Amino acid sequence: MSCQLEMVATIVGTGSTKYDKHPASSSRELFGEAAAEAFDGIDLTPADLDAVYVGNFMGDLIEDQGHMGPLLADHVGAREAASVRVENACASGGTAVGQAVHAIESGAAEAILVGGVEQMSIADIEHVTDALANAADDVYENEQGLTFPGIYALMARRYMHEFGVTEADLAAVSIKNHNNAVANPLSQFQTEVSQEEVLASKPIATPLRLYDACPVSDGASVVVVASESFAAAHDLDPAAHVLGTGQSSDAVALQDRTAITHTPAAERAATAAYDDAGLTPADVDVAEVHDCFTIAEIMAVEALGFYERGEGARGAVEGETALDGRRPVNPSGGLLGKGHPVGATGVGQLVELTKQLDGRHPNQVEDADVALAHNVGGSGASTTVTILGGA
Amino acid sequence: MSCQLEMVATIVGTGSTKYDKHPASSSRELFGEAAAEAFDGIDLTPADLDAVYVGNFMGDLIEDQGHMGPLLADHVGAREAASVRVENACASGGTAVGQAVHAIESGAAEAILVGGVEQMSIADIEHVTDALANAADDVYENEQGLTFPGIYALMARRYMHEFGVTEADLAAVSIKNHNNAVANPLSQFQTEVSQEEVLASKPIATPLRLYDACPVSDGASVVVVASESFAAAHDLDPAAHVLGTGQSSDAVALQDRTAITHTPAAERAATAAYDDAGLTPADVDVAEVHDCFTIAEIMAVEALGFYERGEGARGAVEGETALDGRRPVNPSGGLLGKGHPVGATGVGQLVELTKQLDGRHPNQVEDADVALAHNVGGSGASTTVTILGGA
Repeated sequence: MSCQLEMVATIVGTGSTKYDKHPASSSRELFGEAAAEAFDGIDLTPADLDAVYVGNFMGDLIEDQGHMGPLLADHVGAREAASVRVENACASGGTAVGQAVHAIESGAAEAILVGGVEQMSIADIEHVTDALANAADDVYENEQGLTFPGIYALMARRYMHEFGVTEADLAAVSIKNHNNAVANPLSQFQTEVSQEEVLASKPIATPLRLYDACPVSDGASVVVVASESFAAAHDLDPAAHVLGTGQSSDAVALQDRTAITHTPAAERAATAAYDDAGLTPADVDVAEVHDCFTIAEIMAVEALGFYERGEGARGAVEGETALDGRRPVNPSGGLLGKGHPVGATGVGQLVELTKQLDGRHPNQVEDADVALAHNVGGSGASTTVTILGGA
Repeated sequence: MSCQLEMVATIVGTGSTKYDKHPASSSRELFGEAAAEAFDGIDLTPADLDAVYVGNFMGDLIEDQGHMGPLLADHVGAREAASVRVENACASGGTAVGQAVHAIESGAAEAILVGGVEQMSIADIEHVTDALANAADDVYENEQGLTFPGIYALMARRYMHEFGVTEADLAAVSIKNHNNAVANPLSQFQTEVSQEEVLASKPIATPLRLYDACPVSDGASVVVVASESFAAAHDLDPAAHVLGTGQSSDAVALQDRTAITHTPAAERAATAAYDDAGLTPADVDVAEVHDCFTIAEIMAVEALGFYERGEGARGAVEGETALDGRRPVNPSGGLLGKGHPVGATGVGQLVELTKQLDGRHPNQVEDADVALAHNVGGSGASTTVTILGGA
């Protein structure tokens, strides 16, 4: 009963751990580190927050810890805030962002800490693989032995067949993103890779090789989202505005999809976000997209309307999505180069893009005014798209 | 960027499975059964939904299935809806309701299926106990051997010491709620219990006995929430309006609380909900509260402003919260008698209260115009309060 006009959501603070193996740090420690950075230097304390939204995928499976909302809210000093864990597999972070924007726009909250966190490296890799498989359909995929490298390999194989794309084309995405990651201090990998190295890396699920896949990562990222009126009243300097959000879903099991060489949920989420923002793909200056595998970035840039279907590989192959290209994609290094602490990823994209819009990114894109984040859960069953504008 | 005035959320459909042991049904089957009931007889199909919000606590731990949002959305026929799993331990359902109301009030969605589901009985009881313990602080509670019966026993013991309350007073809550459950076809237990039986039941964590505790249950409950304007445009007959919502948090670990004989998060959530609705405790005609243990209902009716601190036991002992009392509490049977399929519980409370406001509850409260739901996660770290009004 509290909706008011023009509760525009703005980003007034950001923080992130390095994405890396942090075997000695619990989720609460990682989240606390990211939150401390976000509040450093702004005239706001965690006790001022109305809410804390946490994207987390596998805390219960890895750390025996559910109920992360109040646990992390209390840990960062926001004990009384309305708090919640939002889970949408690898899109948990992006979904938490959307939920928070709704709460701001409804007038139910004026200042929200939206964060994501994942601790994966304390468990052995078989356990992590099992946990990740919870994002797929247990009955029709996992129990049949199909895990995510296999699922994306099926998509890649068919895509390559339909559109004449090669392993070298996939490799171009990996090379670009690993090379972008070098200058980003938050990246897990900070070494350039060559085409020769990518194509010589071991197959993990043919046609995908090791360098076609993102790593297992630990980390946390947060943004402080506030209404424009709250920011003004508290003398907070908005670093970016949320211009539009979109979310859509699809069948979880690949076998139930109408398409496996494009991503309808992402297309719908993008359309919704563009409509919400009153913008078109041509307006986007820089994007962070969900490149869990190289093929995923190719399908992402198509779903977002940057390329026609079957044309997405051109972005990396022809340098159009490179740092100095006409529309840079994943200047952070993406999931392939920066890393993928699952619940944190969708929020980390906003941390990166806020820096771009604020003119302080280590891989700064010139004249970036409109930025887009694309976050995917499972093999495309959940997708969120968030469009930010410079303040 | 889409907020509009007066996007009041209304409830246009409800559905629920019986709460019981359903060892042959998966979460998706239970959820599907509840959703089918909600759409039966209304002029709306799942494909018309903008979003599906799912409260679920332990699907990943029990069924190896995370990513329940799109999985269940697709299963009920809403494949393209924005979908999400909301997890706040035993308050997952109530939290999902609040998130959905925000989305409606922001204008981001016009029709949302909000459901909750839990499948617990397919696992052995030790595994369920471990899973439930994820709602507590793993470091400071679980690893020290403290699980929920023990946590609530500590609260009960101190409460009894401070306020002179007896085991017979606790038993009055159990007797009332078990007796209410008899007439509710959705209840797990449909047998009256006597004071003698409650006081002779085996101790599970002194001073709490078996009949002081809710059971392990399977089940699903859903409500269809729509904006008033959407309901009008689609000729849907609102069964109830959402007058107000409130949510607050507290430290997860009992040792970190400022209080263990009252529940500050619930007090804050109630205050927020009353403020949002423009109502006071005196306006509430009927309430469903989170009686996971008898002591929890006593603290709940105090937190909601129905009784002063230390006076809550009077409700059941003196018959004031009985079906024919001045303000009935848990006419459904509550968690003690109806059951507690964790993620479903907070949504199931709204199913019950909508029936009360619509005049079709098996334990109908006369002249019920304002109804309140109180849903708790952990031992009080999360609480949501939702106030409904008759349509």
